[in-house]
Amino acid sequence: MELFYFQYFAEGIGHLGPEESNHCIRVLRHREGDLIDVIDGEGTLFHCKILQADPKDTVVELLSSEENWGARPYRLTMAVCPTKNNDRFEWFVEKATEVGVDRIVPVIGDRSERKVYKTERAERIALSAAKQSLKAQIPDIDEPETVRSFIGTCNAACKLIAYCFEDGSQPRISIREAIRGESDVAILIGPEGDFSPEEVRLAIEKGFRPVHLGHSRLRTETAALTAVEAVYFEFI
Amino acid sequence: MELFYFQYFAEGIGHLGPEESNHCIRVLRHREGDLIDVIDGEGTLFHCKILQADPKDTVVELLSSEENWGARPYRLTMAVCPTKNNDRFEWFVEKATEVGVDRIVPVIGDRSERKVYKTERAERIALSAAKQSLKAQIPDIDEPETVRSFIGTCNAACKLIAYCFEDGSQPRISIREAIRGESDVAILIGPEGDFSPEEVRLAIEKGFRPVHLGHSRLRTETAALTAVEAVYFEFI
Repeated sequence: MELFYFQYFAEGIGHLGPEESNHCIRVLRHREGDLIDVIDGEGTLFHCKILQADPKDTVVELLSSEENWGARPYRLTMAVCPTKNNDRFEWFVEKATEVGVDRIVPVIGDRSERKVYKTERAERIALSAAKQSLKAQIPDIDEPETVRSFIGTCNAACKLIAYCFEDGSQPRISIREAIRGESDVAILIGPEGDFSPEEVRLAIEKGFRPVHLGHSRLRTETAALTAVEAVYFEFI
Repeated sequence: MELFYFQYFAEGIGHLGPEESNHCIRVLRHREGDLIDVIDGEGTLFHCKILQADPKDTVVELLSSEENWGARPYRLTMAVCPTKNNDRFEWFVEKATEVGVDRIVPVIGDRSERKVYKTERAERIALSAAKQSLKAQIPDIDEPETVRSFIGTCNAACKLIAYCFEDGSQPRISIREAIRGESDVAILIGPEGDFSPEEVRLAIEKGFRPVHLGHSRLRTETAALTAVEAVYFEFI
C-alpha cells in the first residue's frame, strides 16, 4: 500500500503538489484513471481516482473517505530539547512518527547547547515517516519555545518530566507506572546537560510528575523514543 | 562518569590500547596517578590507577572490581536482518546497546536484499554506546548467518518471531504478552521484504512463537528496537 499526501482539496477534487505528483507519475508511473490513496495529514484517508496525471500537478477525484484512519487510542505530545547533533533529533522525529506521536515540540532548556531550531526538515521527515508507516495523521511539529514556556502552557491530562539527576526532594516513579490508564499524555525530555533544578521545580509546581525511564543512561533522543514506546506499549 | 575499555589485562595490570589511550591521555588529559574506571566488556568494572600515561599504550593498575556492574535481570538476543541502508542497522545497534541487549545476530533471510554484512563497524558502535550508556558489558555482535541456521541453533527459553503478513494459520500474540515473566529471550526480526512463509513455518516448528509489535507498520530497524524496548519495559 502506498500513500500520497494532498497539497489541497476542495469540492471533491484534490491536488497532490509538485513533489508528490512527481513521485506518483514519474517514479510510480501512475496513469489517468488509476486509483490511489491520499491522506490529508489530519487523520483522514481518501480513496481517489487520477483525473490528470501531470508530474507537476496531479489532480484527483475524491471517491470516498475514511476518517480517523489508523487512529491511536491516545494523544501524545513530546516536548524534547533538540540535540547538538541535528541528525539525532531528526532520527527521533522519524521513529516517533512511525511508532506514534501527535505533536512534537522542540523546547530550549536553560542548559540547551542548541538554542535555535528550524522545523522545515523535521516536517518533511514526519510527512515521509507517516506515509511510510501508513498513518493518515502527520504529527504537528511546533515552532521551538522555551522549556519554561511549554511548562506554563501544556494542558495535557497527564504531564511528565523525565530527568537524570536525583535531588532527593521528589522521588521519581517509573514512566510505566505514571502513564497507566492515561490517554492524553505530554512528556518533557531535557537536553544533553539535563534540565536545570529550577526548570524541574517549576514543572512540578505546574503539575508535571517526575519520572524515570529505567536503569539505562540514555541519550536525549533515545530517552525521547523510549518514552514514546512506553506509551505505545500501554495500548497494545 | 567516563568509562574506558581494556585491550587486555593480566596480574593486576591493564593496557588500554591505542585508541582508548589517546582518548584518555590526549583528549581527556589524564595523568599518571589519576583514577579511572575501565570495563572489560564482559560485565566487570575495574577501578584503576594510571601507571603510565602514554597516549599510545596507557598502563593502569587494577585497584578493585565490581562484577555484573549495572547488569540487567534478563538476557536478550536480537537476530535482525541487516537493512539495505547500513546506517539504519548501525543505528539499531547503537540504540539497542543503550537500552540493553546481550547479543546481536545479523541474519540473512530468503528475501534479504543485503546478503553480506561486515561486523567491524557495528562492534565499534556497540563499544562506544556501551561506554556512553555506562554498561560494563558490550553486546556480542555475531558473524552473519542465515535465518534458517539461526532458527536451528537458537536455544533461548523464549523464542519469538515478529513478521507482518497474516497467513491465518497461526494467530500472532502481542510481544508484551509473549515476554511476560520471561528472562531469556531471543527475537527474530525480518528484512524489508519480510520473512518467507517457509522461514516462518520452520521457526514455528522449532518452537518460535509468532508475535506482533502493535498497530504501527514499522521499518525493520524500528521494529527491532521496539522489540528491545518491550523487553526492557518488562523489567522497569
